[in-house]
Amino acid sequence: MKRKSKSSAMERKKDVLEALRSLGKGIYDQMNNGVFPEIEMPSRSTTNLLYHPELRQYVLGDKNVNRTARNIRHLRPFTQLVWTAYFAHELTQLRKSSTLRDVYYSAQAFDISFNDQSQSNNIITDLETVVGYAREDFNIFPEERSAVFGDLTIEYTVPGYEGKQLNLSSHPDGMMVGPALTYSELIKTSADKIIVIEKGAMFTRFIEEHVYEKFNALIIYTSGQSPRATRFFIQRLNKEMDLPVFIFTDGDPWGMHIAMVLISGSANAAHLRELTIPDAKWAGVWASDIVDYKLPSDSLTEIDIKRLHELLKDPRYKGDIWQKQTKTFLKNKTKCELESFSRYGLTHIVDKYLPERFKELES
Amino acid sequence: MKRKSKSSAMERKKDVLEALRSLGKGIYDQMNNGVFPEIEMPSRSTTNLLYHPELRQYVLGDKNVNRTARNIRHLRPFTQLVWTAYFAHELTQLRKSSTLRDVYYSAQAFDISFNDQSQSNNIITDLETVVGYAREDFNIFPEERSAVFGDLTIEYTVPGYEGKQLNLSSHPDGMMVGPALTYSELIKTSADKIIVIEKGAMFTRFIEEHVYEKFNALIIYTSGQSPRATRFFIQRLNKEMDLPVFIFTDGDPWGMHIAMVLISGSANAAHLRELTIPDAKWAGVWASDIVDYKLPSDSLTEIDIKRLHELLKDPRYKGDIWQKQTKTFLKNKTKCELESFSRYGLTHIVDKYLPERFKELES
Repeated sequence: MKRKSKSSAMERKKDVLEALRSLGKGIYDQMNNGVFPEIEMPSRSTTNLLYHPELRQYVLGDKNVNRTARNIRHLRPFTQLVWTAYFAHELTQLRKSSTLRDVYYSAQAFDISFNDQSQSNNIITDLETVVGYAREDFNIFPEERSAVFGDLTIEYTVPGYEGKQLNLSSHPDGMMVGPALTYSELIKTSADKIIVIEKGAMFTRFIEEHVYEKFNALIIYTSGQSPRATRFFIQRLNKEMDLPVFIFTDGDPWGMHIAMVLISGSANAAHLRELTIPDAKWAGVWASDIVDYKLPSDSLTEIDIKRLHELLKDPRYKGDIWQKQTKTFLKNKTKCELESFSRYGLTHIVDKYLPERFKELES
Repeated sequence: MKRKSKSSAMERKKDVLEALRSLGKGIYDQMNNGVFPEIEMPSRSTTNLLYHPELRQYVLGDKNVNRTARNIRHLRPFTQLVWTAYFAHELTQLRKSSTLRDVYYSAQAFDISFNDQSQSNNIITDLETVVGYAREDFNIFPEERSAVFGDLTIEYTVPGYEGKQLNLSSHPDGMMVGPALTYSELIKTSADKIIVIEKGAMFTRFIEEHVYEKFNALIIYTSGQSPRATRFFIQRLNKEMDLPVFIFTDGDPWGMHIAMVLISGSANAAHLRELTIPDAKWAGVWASDIVDYKLPSDSLTEIDIKRLHELLKDPRYKGDIWQKQTKTFLKNKTKCELESFSRYGLTHIVDKYLPERFKELES
């Protein structure tokens, strides 16, 4: 049984509150000293976007931007940013969760006006950049939900549930990954790996076929491109409990990129360091599996092919497996879905494919 | 504490197996008597589609179609239907769940060929029509997942979990509604109503703000248009536990129709009787709420307006509330989202809107 190394969820909330308070104090002190307050942060323009081979993710370069109350053209975004920081602090302290859409509407209650939601989303990203925490850290969650199943005991930190423990194998349809789970304490698990899968039906199949026992795994369902809160939760399991991560997606450029975003993050989150799992592995369905396992397949579309050429040039795709599989897709011009294994029986994917793939990845 | 009236989930599975077996026996007996086997079923063509005001749903009329092995042009769909019935029986008996996509691929393992998935989907609907049960009854589930939260104790009937009980308030992010929950026994609840909500973020808000306690409710999240398994689960709660159902959606034609499909079903399911909840109520957001609650709103688009004119002519929309709200949308030309209540604070929807609405609906 693995146990977490330290209480991390509550510690982290404290750090987030401290970072927000310190931002406020900086502004207050400047005004107290009779100067126009200003906020400096790294520029997120594409010219300041670099790929960091060691971190295996996009990062921001040295260019900074400055928002100052001295400049009348900055006054509006400056005020919006300060209000957003105030609101984020409220949410975090009261432990109420919210969404990007909610923040947009909530601003109106304070007579803070945003032209539209994309403007308020952008200011929330500014706040992430300034304080160095993800919006989920200040309780702004995505609309999307995913799920988890397996022998993991967690302890809640949300109001009304503090101290209560739950084992995530108690409901065989899976538990939703929402604000409560994301920031729960990870108490103990008998699992030695995490299997991430993009499809709900396969998630159910894996539970029904006892993949969690046969492969000693926690199973996580991402529902297509993984919500950020779920990426963060998987990253915590990987880091705090030392569990290696294996990702199964459809065998096409879009499935491959679902795995890549989990592993190396997106360019949009270059200002953050906590949304990547660099040692996670894309475990299939590979382009070469379509041939090796004689899977029923469809032809690549024009859009698929265009996407594959883009990925070939993407610095995140430099590694051997990525180059090889991208080229195999382009050569064979075929793609397939996880369900295509059912051509050989519903349990073929569990009985044959999974054991062979894990053996291969371990050697 | 309400208790279910009788063990229903396992009974139902037995009935489904019996219906499939009886279909097979009919075919066997015909062949045994030296005649070409045939299967008769109601026609699903639009000319045989009628609205039934008493049942408050679309139903099929008197026209029948006949599939007979005597006709060489029927031989292929006849064989496909017989194989699908065999496969459905296997799934139900082995208690393995599957999807429409899976069935399409699985057919290939038996050298039953479908031109494409829409053809196999259509044969599955034929099977529903013949045996009178929904595909979920023979374990063919949708890919989509939704969730539930509240004081409801269920008892599983799926292998490995038989006899185990769980209270659905034990995980504050919600439990997924999948095959295991859909066919669990409903043991007991202290709730006196069901609140259905289309958005994940609002589902989380309702849990955080203790809507389940304040309004003594189970809360169900549909994730937009409700998956059929979830409609069936809500219908069971309504029927077996006598819980009235209140549906909250965005205030636009699409949200209104999410409620309508839960209440009166879709034209596509005219051959089934188990996917409607005729006494469920659309509780908001109404077109009139946008004015009455001074909600931030957007203008209706051309597509919204076209849709509203279609709905005005739809027989399901004959009732007072539907006609009135559809016309109000068209008159004011505005729509809004559930989140728009946040303009008056994050808890406004729970503190003010919900109590007023329930009072109104009860009077």
